[in-house]
Amino acid sequence: MAEEGVDGRRRKDCACVCPLTIAKRGSANDETVPTSSTSSHTSDVCGTNLGRTIMAARRLLVDIHTHVYLPRYANVLRARRTVPRIVERTNANGSREERLVIFENEPISGRPVGPQYWDLNEKLKFMNNHGIDVSFISSANPWLDFLAPNDAHSLANELNADLDSACRTAPKVADNSSLQRFYAFGLLPLCDDIAPDLLLESVQQIASLSNLKGIIMGSRGIGRGLDDERLEPVWAALAEAHLVVFLHPHYGVGSTAFGEKDNGHVLPLALGFPFETTTAITRLILAGVLDRHPSLRILLAHSGGVLPQLSSRLASCIDHDPVVAGRLQHDARYYMGRLFYDAVAYGPEELGFVSDIISRADTYASSADVGARVGAADRSLGSKQILFGTDHPFFPPLQATDKWRSVVDNLEAIAGVQGWSEDDKEGVRSGNALRIFSLIT
Amino acid sequence: MAEEGVDGRRRKDCACVCPLTIAKRGSANDETVPTSSTSSHTSDVCGTNLGRTIMAARRLLVDIHTHVYLPRYANVLRARRTVPRIVERTNANGSREERLVIFENEPISGRPVGPQYWDLNEKLKFMNNHGIDVSFISSANPWLDFLAPNDAHSLANELNADLDSACRTAPKVADNSSLQRFYAFGLLPLCDDIAPDLLLESVQQIASLSNLKGIIMGSRGIGRGLDDERLEPVWAALAEAHLVVFLHPHYGVGSTAFGEKDNGHVLPLALGFPFETTTAITRLILAGVLDRHPSLRILLAHSGGVLPQLSSRLASCIDHDPVVAGRLQHDARYYMGRLFYDAVAYGPEELGFVSDIISRADTYASSADVGARVGAADRSLGSKQILFGTDHPFFPPLQATDKWRSVVDNLEAIAGVQGWSEDDKEGVRSGNALRIFSLIT
Ligand SMILES: [Zn+2]
Ligand SMILES: [Zn+2]
Repeated sequence: MAEEGVDGRRRKDCACVCPLTIAKRGSANDETVPTSSTSSHTSDVCGTNLGRTIMAARRLLVDIHTHVYLPRYANVLRARRTVPRIVERTNANGSREERLVIFENEPISGRPVGPQYWDLNEKLKFMNNHGIDVSFISSANPWLDFLAPNDAHSLANELNADLDSACRTAPKVADNSSLQRFYAFGLLPLCDDIAPDLLLESVQQIASLSNLKGIIMGSRGIGRGLDDERLEPVWAALAEAHLVVFLHPHYGVGSTAFGEKDNGHVLPLALGFPFETTTAITRLILAGVLDRHPSLRILLAHSGGVLPQLSSRLASCIDHDPVVAGRLQHDARYYMGRLFYDAVAYGPEELGFVSDIISRADTYASSADVGARVGAADRSLGSKQILFGTDHPFFPPLQATDKWRSVVDNLEAIAGVQGWSEDDKEGVRSGNALRIFSLIT
Repeated sequence: MAEEGVDGRRRKDCACVCPLTIAKRGSANDETVPTSSTSSHTSDVCGTNLGRTIMAARRLLVDIHTHVYLPRYANVLRARRTVPRIVERTNANGSREERLVIFENEPISGRPVGPQYWDLNEKLKFMNNHGIDVSFISSANPWLDFLAPNDAHSLANELNADLDSACRTAPKVADNSSLQRFYAFGLLPLCDDIAPDLLLESVQQIASLSNLKGIIMGSRGIGRGLDDERLEPVWAALAEAHLVVFLHPHYGVGSTAFGEKDNGHVLPLALGFPFETTTAITRLILAGVLDRHPSLRILLAHSGGVLPQLSSRLASCIDHDPVVAGRLQHDARYYMGRLFYDAVAYGPEELGFVSDIISRADTYASSADVGARVGAADRSLGSKQILFGTDHPFFPPLQATDKWRSVVDNLEAIAGVQGWSEDDKEGVRSGNALRIFSLIT
């Protein structure tokens, strides 16, 4: 069952259905993955070269939510004496392990980290094992706000250069040599009260690095959240440079309400993270950022948190507050269609629902014919703004296994969405990302 | 457009389609509503008496989420010198008005309150104007946790008796005289560290009052949330007494993340309230309460907050934490089917999605055949656990109008759910409530 989604997809969609696919792909797990050759697992899926056609692109699997701690960044964390930091300790088996501790009051003193966080060979093994052709890597939280502004700015510049170089020197996708295995989201030195000019310098740097296709960003901004007027020139510069903003949680929201029971990381991860993303994007919408920057593209982690389920409630609350309503050009539900969403939702009903919310968005434009609204939603429409992701290397399996349940769940969710055509599903798996990041024309 | 949902429904479903319906129902707005006669607007919808049949029951409209501050409670709030309190002040028009201030740091010093909060004649006018036959009234937040335990206990007893009496003396539904216009959710004296015996006494009182069909409850419990072991006997007593727990937010969650911008009440209401409900019910599930009390019935305000959209993510986070997973009998998604949800979601896509999440729940029971899961969801199934509500008298229209937009939106949402039959929709409007609260056999 666990592997049906992953392999079922390949078997079904492959032009040359070959029963060897599963075994061959499984064996990639044990291979040493070359880091500087152009060979890739994709060429051995079926032994055919599909060429650089749209058809080939549609058969790829592209992961837009996958994290790294670059070696340079890990070293910064190791050198620290306060959180966030990486500490080394002896684990229950008597061997040494490194753990990342992000917050002082974290349960079970952080989480184990290892090569899968900083070695892109490990990332490639994971990708090959799960049939992932291309990964858009992003630095995992925390980012740079624990540093002084100038230090953050220098480190961001170095990490962005590292990321670009890592993407360039890694393998290409063999049967589609215009594509690389890696692209990346860069980092802005978002620290409290940093001079916006330094942020703009970093935007320009990222725009100049051809393998960086956007930035990853938390919800804190430069200390006052994403509805801070001081960020206006940053939004303008990001839109101008066609960089996608990958909005990702870090601090969580609601932890004071999580109580005294030991539920491990369940509540902060399952609830606090999506609450944070939802709060951040809502504040950004209420501040009129999407109205003022119509070409700004924002990709929301974890399928938009819970904003989809709250979007009509939000619209109703705004409608009942003329001050807030007067600031916005459209009904709140309209803005749902202005956003992109990863497919990290773990269930087909959840993904289908997000698709509905995107699909209906234009019927809530202030210029739309309200009478045309009911029943206007075509779930296919929304699929164009949803992109496969894994959240690797988080949510590792508890036991050694070929496939990560967290990845399989997300692939099964895509495969299981009712009302999505096979084309829609292929779009979510690869085509949308390639289009949005301008990797196909 | 605004009235299409309400009146369109009546026109469509009414056995004798009459063009006078709209005008007649509109005029109810200007009538003095009798408080002790048995006449009701329902009889003049089409001038026919539908009788006490199931068909009649299915044509009713039942509101299970509608609030009051009983006169006795309003007087308690008026006598207070600290929040929560009702204050009187001169408003912008030079006239005196009362305002309810719940929190010290509330934006725009609270909200105006008036007769619609404490005069059930006003409630009846609202009901008649919107075609609502039966209301399950509940005390609006805040409840009693600002009082000393013994005071809370006495006041709860008095308010419960008031509620029961108000329901008994109010009109009956004329064409279905076994039904009253009002039923109610009672109050437990939930204060920090109150002796559980006092809570159990109140449960017994409520169980003995025939018009009280459940209780309304916040998320604080007796100071440590709903996963507090000290509440175990209370859950057991509520289940034993067949009382429904209406779980409703009050404190909100996440307000420290709402930033400095003046967004009125939008963020606490649109996000903070559903975050609170979601956190509370998640903690309750993680504590095993639903496993230990299989007959406990919980009704979630605002369509379950955002738990539906997070249920697969929650399941995944639990799966990756063996300690938490080991405490639960089922996958987290199973418990979504153990709950009831109001239909206060303001959009058809949102409601349809909640229905999906309920529908699929049983396929996640630990005993279920996992292979049967994909595509198993029949959206109709879930509709049986969703119940119409208005959240009156909150979200009043900004201008004088016949119909409240907030109510119309929720009726249009029900009417617009794709995949629900007319029977499903009638169930959400009335049949489910009558069944769940044992008002039809
Ligand atoms: Zn992530
Ligand atoms: Zn309410």
